Amino acid sequence: MRFIAIILLFLSTFLNAQNIKKLSEKHIEENGVQIIQEYKTLLSIPNVAFDLPNINKNADYIIGELNKRGVETKLLRMVGTPPIIYGSYPIKGAKRTIAFYVHYDGQPVDKSTWTNDPWEPTYYSRAIYEGGTPLSFPTSFDEIDEEHRIYARSTGDDKAPIITILTALNLLQANKIKPTSNLIFFFEGQEEAGSKQLQQYLNDNRELVDEIDLWLFCDGPVHQSRRPQLVFGVRGVTGMEITTYGPNRPLHSGHYGNWAPVPGQLLSELIASMKDDEGDVIIDGFYDDVEPLSDTEIQAMKNIPRIDEDLKKELGINNPEGTESYNERLLKPSLTIRGLSSGNTGKLARNVVPSTATAAIGMRLVKGCDPEKQKDLVEAHIRKQGFHIVREDPDNETRLKYSKIAKVTRSSGYPAARTSMDLPIIQSVIGRAKDVAGEDLILLPTLGGSLPLYLFTDELNKPAIILPIANHDNNQHAADENMRIGNLWYGIKLMSALMTIDK
Amino acid sequence: MRFIAIILLFLSTFLNAQNIKKLSEKHIEENGVQIIQEYKTLLSIPNVAFDLPNINKNADYIIGELNKRGVETKLLRMVGTPPIIYGSYPIKGAKRTIAFYVHYDGQPVDKSTWTNDPWEPTYYSRAIYEGGTPLSFPTSFDEIDEEHRIYARSTGDDKAPIITILTALNLLQANKIKPTSNLIFFFEGQEEAGSKQLQQYLNDNRELVDEIDLWLFCDGPVHQSRRPQLVFGVRGVTGMEITTYGPNRPLHSGHYGNWAPVPGQLLSELIASMKDDEGDVIIDGFYDDVEPLSDTEIQAMKNIPRIDEDLKKELGINNPEGTESYNERLLKPSLTIRGLSSGNTGKLARNVVPSTATAAIGMRLVKGCDPEKQKDLVEAHIRKQGFHIVREDPDNETRLKYSKIAKVTRSSGYPAARTSMDLPIIQSVIGRAKDVAGEDLILLPTLGGSLPLYLFTDELNKPAIILPIANHDNNQHAADENMRIGNLWYGIKLMSALMTIDK
Repeated sequence: MRFIAIILLFLSTFLNAQNIKKLSEKHIEENGVQIIQEYKTLLSIPNVAFDLPNINKNADYIIGELNKRGVETKLLRMVGTPPIIYGSYPIKGAKRTIAFYVHYDGQPVDKSTWTNDPWEPTYYSRAIYEGGTPLSFPTSFDEIDEEHRIYARSTGDDKAPIITILTALNLLQANKIKPTSNLIFFFEGQEEAGSKQLQQYLNDNRELVDEIDLWLFCDGPVHQSRRPQLVFGVRGVTGMEITTYGPNRPLHSGHYGNWAPVPGQLLSELIASMKDDEGDVIIDGFYDDVEPLSDTEIQAMKNIPRIDEDLKKELGINNPEGTESYNERLLKPSLTIRGLSSGNTGKLARNVVPSTATAAIGMRLVKGCDPEKQKDLVEAHIRKQGFHIVREDPDNETRLKYSKIAKVTRSSGYPAARTSMDLPIIQSVIGRAKDVAGEDLILLPTLGGSLPLYLFTDELNKPAIILPIANHDNNQHAADENMRIGNLWYGIKLMSALMTIDK
Repeated sequence: MRFIAIILLFLSTFLNAQNIKKLSEKHIEENGVQIIQEYKTLLSIPNVAFDLPNINKNADYIIGELNKRGVETKLLRMVGTPPIIYGSYPIKGAKRTIAFYVHYDGQPVDKSTWTNDPWEPTYYSRAIYEGGTPLSFPTSFDEIDEEHRIYARSTGDDKAPIITILTALNLLQANKIKPTSNLIFFFEGQEEAGSKQLQQYLNDNRELVDEIDLWLFCDGPVHQSRRPQLVFGVRGVTGMEITTYGPNRPLHSGHYGNWAPVPGQLLSELIASMKDDEGDVIIDGFYDDVEPLSDTEIQAMKNIPRIDEDLKKELGINNPEGTESYNERLLKPSLTIRGLSSGNTGKLARNVVPSTATAAIGMRLVKGCDPEKQKDLVEAHIRKQGFHIVREDPDNETRLKYSKIAKVTRSSGYPAARTSMDLPIIQSVIGRAKDVAGEDLILLPTLGGSLPLYLFTDELNKPAIILPIANHDNNQHAADENMRIGNLWYGIKLMSALMTIDK
């Protein structure tokens, strides 16, 4: 019996691996026109998070489509916030549960900057910026080209995954293929508004989410090189503001210049002391907690295309910070002067010694770095430079007591998250994704940007990875957001494959 | 005959020295009520430079008063600008000509911030901020106290000198004392609007101003220690803006932070490189051209009260720039970060690597420093730090060519001016001022602030000194501008004395 079970498992795995891509392609060919129509219908419902009536229309529509496919749904609700659609598709005998996270809300729009109405989807021969022209929506599969694009808000960010998931369910059912895991669909309605209640939703529904063994975040664009990618982590984020002090009121720069301390000078000296000539941070301990990459991750890094030269040309940069490649730099915590202010510059500049100077410092964190400890290190450095640290603007007594004073206002923040590529379940996901994406698939240890993925990896203690499907030039958050049809097809293949990973 | 002449000269000098103070005091006692009334009348005429109808009323009134005292007047006019009142009081046999510069315009007012209407003079028992209460204007000299104050716009800045000059003419005439110099009264009407046409006025009337041997600038307050002072110079002023560059558009600090160059970091490093830990400028050659003080000036410096501790307490400063005293610091050129800007700070701060960072740099100059050369030195320093200097925002080609780029926008400016205390005519002025001010008189080599005095000292090549009479707390340029009666009396004595310096 045991032997036969192993043979069957092998066969089913082999068949899936061989067939799911072909089955998907056949399904797309037979249903492509209909898939695009359903996608268009979904895109026609405005979905800005604060527009609750329309948000609810989106939720109702999506629930209807899930129910049609046999998914049990419930709405997780908190008063005044967009609900979370929680869909459950239990598989008899499945030993694990995989959740697909998607957000059905989108960024607000400024219609004046769009070529067409963002809530009336339009169909183009290719990207508008590449000379695409409007076409009628296709009525037969022959009319469809992979370079065609659909323009509407949330095409890429983040309604495409919803359509691809719904289609994947259809095609598995049509081919009588049973998913290999219990499936959960966790569709959030306020990601673009900051996911402010996400943690609360997770806490309030712990019994629902605790059963989930793997979170798949269906969001974001593929790699700038256009190659498909899986992303295993994000950087964390925190920051602080530092204010330095001169005289207690702005002084005439003639009567006092060369005597009154200049806060912009003090601030500049402090900032300059934080980095070396290469742009590396020289604050004691700043890189100490960085968790090194595993061998698998190191191997994966070698397979990521180097885009440095293209980026430099595009962004007008001769000399980036640091000596490593762009990809390697994202694996280190960052310290960025995102704002400076003191007195005025330009036409408003006055002949004063200003009273204060302020720097807004943004910090990105990588796996291993604690947001609070990282800020402690910066504060220790500020003290080492001779500054007395205060939390409020100093009174005159404090000013008279200390030769250099810095007010430090710490931002909150959250840590990085990174899921190991070595976990068996992740190896299965990688293998299955390669079945549809090919060996070209990029395995990116971390994004440079930040998402609160730690809520899942650290709070819920579950592996979580990001599955981007949108084209890299999908204009997410901006005007003329769009989805390339080829990427939509890729999404359908990927979802189908991940619903049927090795048992 | 020659011997007799010398005896007479000696006697007249001796008599003047002994008597002018007493004669002034007697005249003030006999005419104080009337002097204050005339002052009040003058102060009642609004005098903002752009208010030409009222400016002309001021000029008409002042001309009338000058004419009454036998001064020949003419108005130097340029279309659309406040005229200069040019009064001439030639003295038979006088071998030199002294000009009294005053400005009859005043700063604009924001009435809402004044205790009383700035154009309806009020009389107070003492300074309002010290608890002074309103009084009726005095009707007899017994009612007048030196601590009394008159409140109105331009009381101190700069109508008091006009009244003291008019009174000094009265008292000399009443006592049949002949001035020892030809007197010129050069009353400007747009000093508070920037004296934009002053140079043109001087050029256009060169034959009138070339005959002047000494310029006395009657303006400004006495020393912070309340002691009377003569001021022999001003610092010059110039400056520049420096912009450093990151990516050619603001980038997401997550996706690019730690790789994209940060303009605020580059700017901070550049600024930090300009000064040492003490706050002294370490740009090569920055202090090289400073003209050293003469022995007389060094001696005068020793007699200036040290106000550092009071200033530090008042301004909340523990550690001023440099190791010298406040007075000594003003004798060096300055470099002040008067403004910084990059991205945003506070609530507007965004998660970006900004595209640019800008510093507005103010520079004060002392005698010997050329404004253009001083800026050249800063530019040489910027280049030494590895920056390629541009004059306009760089295009992409330029950005790709140079690792560090700084746009430098030079301000115009003008040099410092300082009149030697050792000139015989200046020694006479000092001696005479001491007759009325006592040995307490402060001889200040330079103000920290800037005035275009170089137009007189360098362009006309004539000695020029500043004679402040207003109380140090006269609130010039601000609300509740006022004049202390004791300072008004001091002004009358000083003007009388200076009209009768040694022949």
